[in-house]
Amino acid sequence: MFRFEILHRSKKSGARVGRITTPHGVIDTPNFVAVGTNGTLKALDNRMVDSIGLQLMFCNTYHLLLQPGVEVVQKAGGLHQFINRKMPIITDSGGFQVFSLAYGSVASELKSCGAKKQDGHVLKISEDGVLFRSYRDGKPILLTPESSIQAQKALGADIIIPFDELPPYHIGPEKLKNSFERTHRWEKRSLDEHLKNRQNQAIYAVIHGGVDSTLRQESAERLSALPFDGFAIGGSLGKSKPEMVNMLESLMPYVPDERPNHLLGIGDLESLYLCIPLGIDTFDSSYPTRAARHGLLLTKEGGLKVIRGEMATRFGPIESDCHCWTCQNFTIAYLHHLFKANELTAYTLATVHNLHFMVELMKRYRASILNE
Amino acid sequence: MFRFEILHRSKKSGARVGRITTPHGVIDTPNFVAVGTNGTLKALDNRMVDSIGLQLMFCNTYHLLLQPGVEVVQKAGGLHQFINRKMPIITDSGGFQVFSLAYGSVASELKSCGAKKQDGHVLKISEDGVLFRSYRDGKPILLTPESSIQAQKALGADIIIPFDELPPYHIGPEKLKNSFERTHRWEKRSLDEHLKNRQNQAIYAVIHGGVDSTLRQESAERLSALPFDGFAIGGSLGKSKPEMVNMLESLMPYVPDERPNHLLGIGDLESLYLCIPLGIDTFDSSYPTRAARHGLLLTKEGGLKVIRGEMATRFGPIESDCHCWTCQNFTIAYLHHLFKANELTAYTLATVHNLHFMVELMKRYRASILNE
Repeated sequence: MFRFEILHRSKKSGARVGRITTPHGVIDTPNFVAVGTNGTLKALDNRMVDSIGLQLMFCNTYHLLLQPGVEVVQKAGGLHQFINRKMPIITDSGGFQVFSLAYGSVASELKSCGAKKQDGHVLKISEDGVLFRSYRDGKPILLTPESSIQAQKALGADIIIPFDELPPYHIGPEKLKNSFERTHRWEKRSLDEHLKNRQNQAIYAVIHGGVDSTLRQESAERLSALPFDGFAIGGSLGKSKPEMVNMLESLMPYVPDERPNHLLGIGDLESLYLCIPLGIDTFDSSYPTRAARHGLLLTKEGGLKVIRGEMATRFGPIESDCHCWTCQNFTIAYLHHLFKANELTAYTLATVHNLHFMVELMKRYRASILNE
Repeated sequence: MFRFEILHRSKKSGARVGRITTPHGVIDTPNFVAVGTNGTLKALDNRMVDSIGLQLMFCNTYHLLLQPGVEVVQKAGGLHQFINRKMPIITDSGGFQVFSLAYGSVASELKSCGAKKQDGHVLKISEDGVLFRSYRDGKPILLTPESSIQAQKALGADIIIPFDELPPYHIGPEKLKNSFERTHRWEKRSLDEHLKNRQNQAIYAVIHGGVDSTLRQESAERLSALPFDGFAIGGSLGKSKPEMVNMLESLMPYVPDERPNHLLGIGDLESLYLCIPLGIDTFDSSYPTRAARHGLLLTKEGGLKVIRGEMATRFGPIESDCHCWTCQNFTIAYLHHLFKANELTAYTLATVHNLHFMVELMKRYRASILNE
């Protein structure tokens, strides 16, 4: 069922236009993947998200495992049925979140250079997996490659991700190498568990190796030898965008060209601009939806801070040529007012626009590559 | 433009079915009026509110005066234009809010029996009006009968309300009488200001007199002699529902039958049930929308507390015969999950259902009266 076709390759860069086919429909690539951690984008309902045309939604197994629990989702007939989403879903393994618990917040540690921080919720990390305490009811939960895949089978997303170990940014070469070896053993165990019952799901390997480009290349080579359907790029890619670009430039030649790839947790506008020419197919990020809730509206002329005083009397839409629900019905001045008045409606209307903006932006990227 | 017709009178009670015509369309009565304090119902956008069929929305002049300010709304072309609502709007005078500042919270004091509390925001109450300090920028604002009406002219609602003085519940007979006299002087000044420029708006008097039924009757008689388009019933009606019903039973014979009436700030399900037979035409309340945000879903079988554990696996809609967006698309189990996960989407979906429920409930009330 899962299929990836490359429709066009840029003559100017590594960019390509492709089409991923899944049991719940097509994902045109390159594309932006919005994050709906708990089975919803924040402040939007899933019918509206479908109507905006967001082709792939990212849900977090860790969060769904704790609330409502996979049994509930399974009883509902799977995640699509439970949340009423008709289009494709990708779930992660939970690894990222449990290692964030162990090593500090995702943003400060795994993705960049924050100070190391111990959090009490992880009880034990062993070869088997990670034992952690549920923040909801205090119960200990063991997440292993096998249990993560089983959870993702119960959720039933179109694309799933193997359980991986994420090293913190501040790690010596030996520990990085140990983590590197373990993550590949865990990914193999995850794949084996998946292959017992494919259940019409695709599985993307996660390429690791931290900021060591030799390890990154080795990771790509090892994982390429296995029957993964696609390749995600995980863990820290450095402290800055130039470091990220350097890393991806050295890595991409080792990532199998004929299979789709995904850049995990990165999808801000600058990163899209920098990474699409390197051949990245999909990007997930909570940036556009989070920015919306902070009153930052995306436009072709840059970000518009709707709470600034001068927006109080802008009686036109955010973008005059935008066809989103918000721009078709409401003005900047009204959005400004809703933000100033702390009205929940503000978050919904801003999120609708930013998500629509991303969908349209990716269409423009694809159109532009088709002309290269 | 403003017109009220009584289409049918119950033979069993004082209930009547009517139709109010305004510049922005019809309000069938009896009806429920949802509260959109800042120019939006909480967690819903106004296009959706229109589509649910809510015929009258209540906005608060006090709040709009402070944010965004009437000048902004006026520049936008009036409140309907600013918030993009096509259907009728009613605004209040701001009196209720400034006297809440002076005497303590609305819920604890004006509507019932809370302890008296002084709040520093009201600077001076005089025959002219009320001087208070804006909680937004600290600027002193003078609200008088004339300035309240002028603000409501700038907002441009279909129905406006005169500036009144609201006595606290704990007040001696002499002070109540003084407040009573002043409120009638202020209402007359408000009416005079309105009549200088009707601007296609209707104005409802506010009947006062606190819990003194003689004063209430006198208020109704005095205000009936003036060319008000309708009559709102304001202030405290007692400590309990039986007291409220007694008061309304003694008052309603004095309220002009041929003009529409409105019960201010009361619209919970029990009050609707008790007061519609007494001949009340419209009711405003934030109850259904606030209940929604607290996870209390309204059904024909009573309130459903969606966060209760047993709701986690209810894989059907809130009501199987409900045609609201939420019931057509999502299950109780999913709503339960969204509430447990503190997702904003929960508030929107629950509010959609409760508002739709109110619209349908009022249709049933009208249909039932037509058969009496």
